[in-house]
Amino acid sequence: MPLPAASRTLKEIAEYLGGVIRGDENHLINGLAPLETADPDKITFLANPKYASKVATTGAGAVLMSPGTESFGRNVIEVSNPYLAFAKLLTLFYVQKAEPLGVMNGSIVAPDASLEENVTIHPGAVLSSGVKIGKGSVIYSGAVIYQDVEIGNDTTIHANAVIRERCRIGSRCVIQPGAVIGSDGFGYAPDGTAYYPIPQIGTVVLEDDVEIGANSCIDRAALEITLIKRGTKLDNLVQVAHNCTIGEECIIVSQVGISGSTKIGNHVTLAGQAGVAGHLTIGDNVMVGAQSGVPSSLPPNAGYSGTPAIAHNEWLKAVSIIPRLPELKRALRALEKRVNELEKNRE
Amino acid sequence: MPLPAASRTLKEIAEYLGGVIRGDENHLINGLAPLETADPDKITFLANPKYASKVATTGAGAVLMSPGTESFGRNVIEVSNPYLAFAKLLTLFYVQKAEPLGVMNGSIVAPDASLEENVTIHPGAVLSSGVKIGKGSVIYSGAVIYQDVEIGNDTTIHANAVIRERCRIGSRCVIQPGAVIGSDGFGYAPDGTAYYPIPQIGTVVLEDDVEIGANSCIDRAALEITLIKRGTKLDNLVQVAHNCTIGEECIIVSQVGISGSTKIGNHVTLAGQAGVAGHLTIGDNVMVGAQSGVPSSLPPNAGYSGTPAIAHNEWLKAVSIIPRLPELKRALRALEKRVNELEKNRE
Amino acid sequence: MPLPAASRTLKEIAEYLGGVIRGDENHLINGLAPLETADPDKITFLANPKYASKVATTGAGAVLMSPGTESFGRNVIEVSNPYLAFAKLLTLFYVQKAEPLGVMNGSIVAPDASLEENVTIHPGAVLSSGVKIGKGSVIYSGAVIYQDVEIGNDTTIHANAVIRERCRIGSRCVIQPGAVIGSDGFGYAPDGTAYYPIPQIGTVVLEDDVEIGANSCIDRAALEITLIKRGTKLDNLVQVAHNCTIGEECIIVSQVGISGSTKIGNHVTLAGQAGVAGHLTIGDNVMVGAQSGVPSSLPPNAGYSGTPAIAHNEWLKAVSIIPRLPELKRALRALEKRVNELEKNRE
Repeated sequence: MPLPAASRTLKEIAEYLGGVIRGDENHLINGLAPLETADPDKITFLANPKYASKVATTGAGAVLMSPGTESFGRNVIEVSNPYLAFAKLLTLFYVQKAEPLGVMNGSIVAPDASLEENVTIHPGAVLSSGVKIGKGSVIYSGAVIYQDVEIGNDTTIHANAVIRERCRIGSRCVIQPGAVIGSDGFGYAPDGTAYYPIPQIGTVVLEDDVEIGANSCIDRAALEITLIKRGTKLDNLVQVAHNCTIGEECIIVSQVGISGSTKIGNHVTLAGQAGVAGHLTIGDNVMVGAQSGVPSSLPPNAGYSGTPAIAHNEWLKAVSIIPRLPELKRALRALEKRVNELEKNRE
Repeated sequence: MPLPAASRTLKEIAEYLGGVIRGDENHLINGLAPLETADPDKITFLANPKYASKVATTGAGAVLMSPGTESFGRNVIEVSNPYLAFAKLLTLFYVQKAEPLGVMNGSIVAPDASLEENVTIHPGAVLSSGVKIGKGSVIYSGAVIYQDVEIGNDTTIHANAVIRERCRIGSRCVIQPGAVIGSDGFGYAPDGTAYYPIPQIGTVVLEDDVEIGANSCIDRAALEITLIKRGTKLDNLVQVAHNCTIGEECIIVSQVGISGSTKIGNHVTLAGQAGVAGHLTIGDNVMVGAQSGVPSSLPPNAGYSGTPAIAHNEWLKAVSIIPRLPELKRALRALEKRVNELEKNRE
Repeated sequence: MPLPAASRTLKEIAEYLGGVIRGDENHLINGLAPLETADPDKITFLANPKYASKVATTGAGAVLMSPGTESFGRNVIEVSNPYLAFAKLLTLFYVQKAEPLGVMNGSIVAPDASLEENVTIHPGAVLSSGVKIGKGSVIYSGAVIYQDVEIGNDTTIHANAVIRERCRIGSRCVIQPGAVIGSDGFGYAPDGTAYYPIPQIGTVVLEDDVEIGANSCIDRAALEITLIKRGTKLDNLVQVAHNCTIGEECIIVSQVGISGSTKIGNHVTLAGQAGVAGHLTIGDNVMVGAQSGVPSSLPPNAGYSGTPAIAHNEWLKAVSIIPRLPELKRALRALEKRVNELEKNRE
């Protein structure tokens, strides 16, 4: 375990989680670990019933599990969602909000930038004219915030991220290193001999609790806004083109690309390397499989896969046949010969 | 509309565009907006005949449209290319070339770097020894220009872009944030037990009016140059490997990857997430569909799709059958049984 | 040829390579060039027998070739691996290790950072508290090294790369511009209404001789380490998710994505834009074709292609039929009619 942490009793931990102890409530825990490698001073979790037998042999001092699960004599804290409880304990044990350090030496902050209390602006960060940073937010080294950007409270902008002019970032957002928010949308008007660049005068708005992965790119709108709604998480190297709207609590996995002006509903999952064409509407609760290509709008509450994407179950059946195409072709040719023969005999 | 702009009469606008007014030439316009949301002080445009009926109900003060289009009593400026005219008005109304600010405090400029007049070097930008920057060019914060790079006139290098040693960038180019020009080509010689890195001693040349999207990567050549010709536009997160040549006025959409030593003609479009293998020749005016994989050279003046890519129309027909493969397989098996039966009866 | 270089006799070059001269051992060479464009003061190489006839017409002063190859009267140095020999001569002629420049003005180095001898820390680089840099390593401008990172000897971190807290980079590694090492893994626990971010408290470890391409992203592990072993090379824009292990001497081509917790063996090649799902095991010496999607673990010592990936040879046969699906469908329908006819006649 890479990080030290203070010890807590199972009683304290159970109270923090609102869970129920079976076993020694005074047992001391100083961290978390996987089922397989945990020591007696660590707590672990059982979320997937497939691994239930590992509880019998774990060296952990306690196990987070659902009510009524077999404990094999281990100390247990019963919680309704063991995986979520584990995540919350990781935060409790290992995540200390750093002391705010203010505007550090070596940062570059425009005189008219407006900083609320308890911010940290690391050395080498650049805040341009008119920038507003909410309380408790942290801007790491090398991040460049163009003019008139507004950033909410308790947001983290990691090193070398770039937020271009007039974009707005909500509270409790996390922008991983190298992400670019507000680059120019990719729009050109052909004039017969060359491409005339269409000024991209809109912006990007990220609502609260949005997270953007490393080196992902969110283009500014041509005229209005590119919008990512509350709670949506983007992985690394994702492309969101100009004028898109992405709904609330979506999961957009690494290397996905979303073309211009597409509207994505709430609770949508786009798996890795999927691509979505422009000017589409993707319904709520849609799941799109990895590497799928979506050429047209998708109704809500269903899964889709393939290029062009179809219903996920149909896709599974269809692609299972692709390796057997040579065999099917041979079978067809053989059958043709037999029918030739039958026809000849008939005459 | 996110930006304020000065008012102009329709007469002034028509003169600027070389268009013809139908309606009130003294009507005042202070900006641009979409057909659906425009107010009387805004001008809008009709490019796609599909939306012609929206002209009847738009609140816009004037509409850019092709000569002879039904105006529904609106003020109209007739132009041959309404979309291009709209783009030019966006520039007229909203894009002010910023006043040059020279070498700003907090930038790092080598003593022997050579800067022409009217440049702006933002705080935190780094210009290494021997760098030359043409007049009117702007280097944003955090951009790093390695030694002996030459950049033309009126070019913009956005924040945290990197231009490595000896590369050359033309005039009126735009490099979006985080793009990398001149990273080492991916070349290794296996020596039986390990990979020996082949020094990549070539460079990258971007001709005039080239635009490179956010976080895109253009690798330097092994020996000579990786070349992107005049007017070509690359979207975000594009990969161009070492020794490639990309012709004039190409459109390379987001997340495309082009492998080493491939030559791409003029006026080529590669749609999003397409991949092109190495050492190929792609003809002029080729269009490659989204997510396609190109394993071999492509003749000019045609469209291709799929992996491996084939003629676009053939691909459309072929993929329309993939969801029906289970049905075809069942039909084949049923037919086999019937032929068995016929053969049995014959005996 | 873009770079000047000092002259050497063929005798000196042959001794350096351990090769055998046929021809004039006193001939002077001042650089390298391709077969087609080499002048008499350049040396070239023949690796692919396909180009053997070009030796007859090359203008080069000497040719590196395998023992016994037809020389057409040229000066020759015989070596067992001409391509490797060419790479080594490129290094000899063109790569000078720059003089170490120490901690340069304009860099930002925490007082408790620990730097060994002969390092170069370029202006605008940021080294945080507790960072350790081994001897001879070079950190370019704009690179940001978070706290407690350890970097080995003779490693190069290019401009605007980011190494997040506590990660470890070996010796002789090269990190291209904009790469991000140690971004947070993409892990969230749904709590019924929102996604709770799971703290990613692990790190990334890159062993010796690892190279990471421009704007590639390696996520830190949730609890333990994301590991890339000795000698493995990643191209640009690659995504490696949290908790992955990649073995020794692998080649991971541009825009590949590897999902969380997957273990990749030694000497594996993943071609461009391939995707690998999470929690898989990929055997040693596996080759995965470009754009392939790997949904399940792969046995060693074989090639795989397609989505979902199958044996490469089977995939070649299967995809060759896809363009002919419309024809096969027509053939099947025609056959059905003929069988209908036969059945009717039988009655």
